[in-house]
Amino acid sequence: MHQALADLKQRLAEIFDLERALGVMGWDQRTMMPPKGAAARAEAAATLSGVIHERFISDEIGRLLDQVASLETELGHDSDDASLVRVTRREWEKARRVPAEIAAAWAREGGKAHVAWLEAREQNDFSVFLPALRRVHDVALRWAELMEQGDSPYDAFLDEYEPGMTTAEVKAVFDVLQPELTAIVRDAGEPANNAFLEGDFPIPAQEEFLAGILRDFGFEEGAYRLDPTVHPFATSFTGTDIRMTTRYKPDNLRALWAAMHEAGHGLSYQGVDPALGRSPLYGNASLGLGESQSRTWENLVGRSLPFWRGRYPELQRLFPQLEAVELDDFFRGINRVAPGLIRVDADEVTYSLHIILRFELEQELVAGTLALEDLPEAWNARMKAFLGIDVPDDVRGVLQDVHWTRASYGYFPTYALGNVLSVQIWRAVEEELRDLDEQLEAGEFAPLYESLRTRLYRHGRKFTPMETLEHAIGANQIDPQPYLEYLRGKVAGLQPA
Amino acid sequence: MHQALADLKQRLAEIFDLERALGVMGWDQRTMMPPKGAAARAEAAATLSGVIHERFISDEIGRLLDQVASLETELGHDSDDASLVRVTRREWEKARRVPAEIAAAWAREGGKAHVAWLEAREQNDFSVFLPALRRVHDVALRWAELMEQGDSPYDAFLDEYEPGMTTAEVKAVFDVLQPELTAIVRDAGEPANNAFLEGDFPIPAQEEFLAGILRDFGFEEGAYRLDPTVHPFATSFTGTDIRMTTRYKPDNLRALWAAMHEAGHGLSYQGVDPALGRSPLYGNASLGLGESQSRTWENLVGRSLPFWRGRYPELQRLFPQLEAVELDDFFRGINRVAPGLIRVDADEVTYSLHIILRFELEQELVAGTLALEDLPEAWNARMKAFLGIDVPDDVRGVLQDVHWTRASYGYFPTYALGNVLSVQIWRAVEEELRDLDEQLEAGEFAPLYESLRTRLYRHGRKFTPMETLEHAIGANQIDPQPYLEYLRGKVAGLQPA
Repeated sequence: MHQALADLKQRLAEIFDLERALGVMGWDQRTMMPPKGAAARAEAAATLSGVIHERFISDEIGRLLDQVASLETELGHDSDDASLVRVTRREWEKARRVPAEIAAAWAREGGKAHVAWLEAREQNDFSVFLPALRRVHDVALRWAELMEQGDSPYDAFLDEYEPGMTTAEVKAVFDVLQPELTAIVRDAGEPANNAFLEGDFPIPAQEEFLAGILRDFGFEEGAYRLDPTVHPFATSFTGTDIRMTTRYKPDNLRALWAAMHEAGHGLSYQGVDPALGRSPLYGNASLGLGESQSRTWENLVGRSLPFWRGRYPELQRLFPQLEAVELDDFFRGINRVAPGLIRVDADEVTYSLHIILRFELEQELVAGTLALEDLPEAWNARMKAFLGIDVPDDVRGVLQDVHWTRASYGYFPTYALGNVLSVQIWRAVEEELRDLDEQLEAGEFAPLYESLRTRLYRHGRKFTPMETLEHAIGANQIDPQPYLEYLRGKVAGLQPA
Repeated sequence: MHQALADLKQRLAEIFDLERALGVMGWDQRTMMPPKGAAARAEAAATLSGVIHERFISDEIGRLLDQVASLETELGHDSDDASLVRVTRREWEKARRVPAEIAAAWAREGGKAHVAWLEAREQNDFSVFLPALRRVHDVALRWAELMEQGDSPYDAFLDEYEPGMTTAEVKAVFDVLQPELTAIVRDAGEPANNAFLEGDFPIPAQEEFLAGILRDFGFEEGAYRLDPTVHPFATSFTGTDIRMTTRYKPDNLRALWAAMHEAGHGLSYQGVDPALGRSPLYGNASLGLGESQSRTWENLVGRSLPFWRGRYPELQRLFPQLEAVELDDFFRGINRVAPGLIRVDADEVTYSLHIILRFELEQELVAGTLALEDLPEAWNARMKAFLGIDVPDDVRGVLQDVHWTRASYGYFPTYALGNVLSVQIWRAVEEELRDLDEQLEAGEFAPLYESLRTRLYRHGRKFTPMETLEHAIGANQIDPQPYLEYLRGKVAGLQPA
């Protein structure tokens, strides 16, 4: 038994190593790689992915899992070893269900659909994307059938990102959210002025500001980096090698919040219990829980009044034109609520509506109640219903996101779940840290990080998302009410005095 | 047969992909990685190396090699496919000779010796390094026995870097070189003034200068990078993803020649026939031939008078203090000949003497005629004999290089072979390009690159070093005379007018 467990851990550690190699290649590709390296990089990544998959689904891993199966009960649910066996068995069984030809077809059709999507955006015409979308959609549905996960094919998609969560659970949350959010947006009043967020913002000064932020947030010196990229992301190769990115523009400050968002991911990677390192338990329990932390540091910290009370003088020193802008006006500007066409530009209130729209359309596509060719029309109608705006063309509508080029159904809802979870967890932290606002204003983030690390980050991938939530705050259900209260309060606080 | 060849190519392409993954990790480690990522990176690299080795030495590769063996004669020696089979068989047979435990012991003892070497440097005491050196030395000798390559164990070491070359061949070249070089140094006269190479040289201006150099040397746009590092190197993941590095210091200009050196490596990678890409034939035929090209672009171009006739005004514009330095004095300064203690700081004339010293000591160590504990004494005596200088301590003597921490015997001589080969090849290019000096002055490097690409770079690893030399210049022997003539001419040209 002990030998089998040691063998299993060794094999999983090696697979972890190979995944990190793939991760380094991915990071390099998105930050450093000369553009003409792309073709060779794609081949190398495909080969390494294949090697990883092959090693993971091997009979030998299955044999070792059988030998250690009794540990799951003997050691108790919360032990690291029991969790390793439980999580690995679940993922091994899922991975074994996918024949190589389905995985290859999905990757191939996804690649082609990506090319078609770029072309369709160029021509601003969904119909150019449609045939390729249909092919990748069909492969995805075949995959979902093989997975036999949950009650509906959509459950299988969702399970990839939120293990164990059902479509019905998500729907119950979103069914509460959508009308309330639509009402909050409708009643938000005139959007605040944020014109001062465009102008002359030299990138070196932005970098200087962010270097201080990351240091103060609690990153360990010599254990992280922040680099420029086109589509910001964060990744990590171990708890002491965290890579964050942002997108700098010399004429606006959006890079600051993009970086704080990625810093939230980075802190959650840094905070994983080192005992879970070099194993499948390193990381986040789900995309939604991961996103809850990026949104925490981007929004609950980075768009809060206490934070900017402390930090605004430094920003004004770096960008002297802001000396003409009062703190209150700055705060209103960075929290401006206004319906818009583009998800990635959306404010905190409207953002989740963009997501719920996609979630609903995805479910209908997967159920077959919405035909792919009717997608633009359905998109535009729902934009009108949720946000009250007219979509002028496909590029600013149904063609705006990359996710559907791979038929990555189930991914979008995790963004809104992250928003909801962020406030649920934040409320518990507020209970614990009575002077949290004063700490944020003073730039003391250690108690906040420590609370989140202890509640959440240290568990890594040991538990399901809802088990993890229970460990974090003692509740095992997603509750949209704190998030709605937070938004209502925020919108009220934005009104001119 | 066709199927077997296709299968073999596919397997080798996948191994190439995995080696590139390892390469990206290595590049990242030396340029970008936060220092605390080192431990996890070492584990990941070790795992991936093991996977690569295991896949390469597999019986399946052997079976496929047997099936295609007749291609070697059928297709003719120079065909790409025959070369692939020939080169792969040679490397597969070598790799199969090394039991995993020897490879692991070498890596392990090398790692420990590296730690001991750092400690010994700290204490400036060779005896601190000696016990660990003895252990890695013993493993290396066991390895050499297993290889049964050539007539002496040293042939086995040399073969790792110069496939097919014998110790006797190298010795014949060095036996001519050493007394001649010692005489040239002795007769070189008073070292030129180069004090102006120290001072205020802002790094952004150095970067600007080098960006122009690399572009003009002929690198393809969007297919390369130059990054800062501590110990400069170049690597490549495909012909259109070339990574070069240099070490910037704000108080001197050494980064320029370090970068031109690495650019030479980079151009040789860029110039490989694309048909050899994603196969074991991508790269350089040997370390010596690779080094011949880094030395070509660093020295034969980058320390030549025609090159600086064209480029010096730009350097003076970027570093105005050089306006007080005449071109002739600048040329003398950057080519200053003076015996010194440190190999990596050595000038063109003395450099090879540092190498020959190491080559001779290595041979004696491997033959057992020099005991490891007598190494410092032997080092110091030979420094006196070759360069006429006294070694004050171990750090500036026997402890200065990292190579022996892994008992990487056979590596050092390739540096001097590179110097010799660079001039042999350059002479052939001069015959072909009658106005080469005028081109260098005009900053037109395309004819030079094209000549070197056609003669040398395109062949990649298809041939042995001496076969490659024959393709490049019609000679299949290393001839030290052109190099000696070049150095004599250069030293003569450095005398004050």
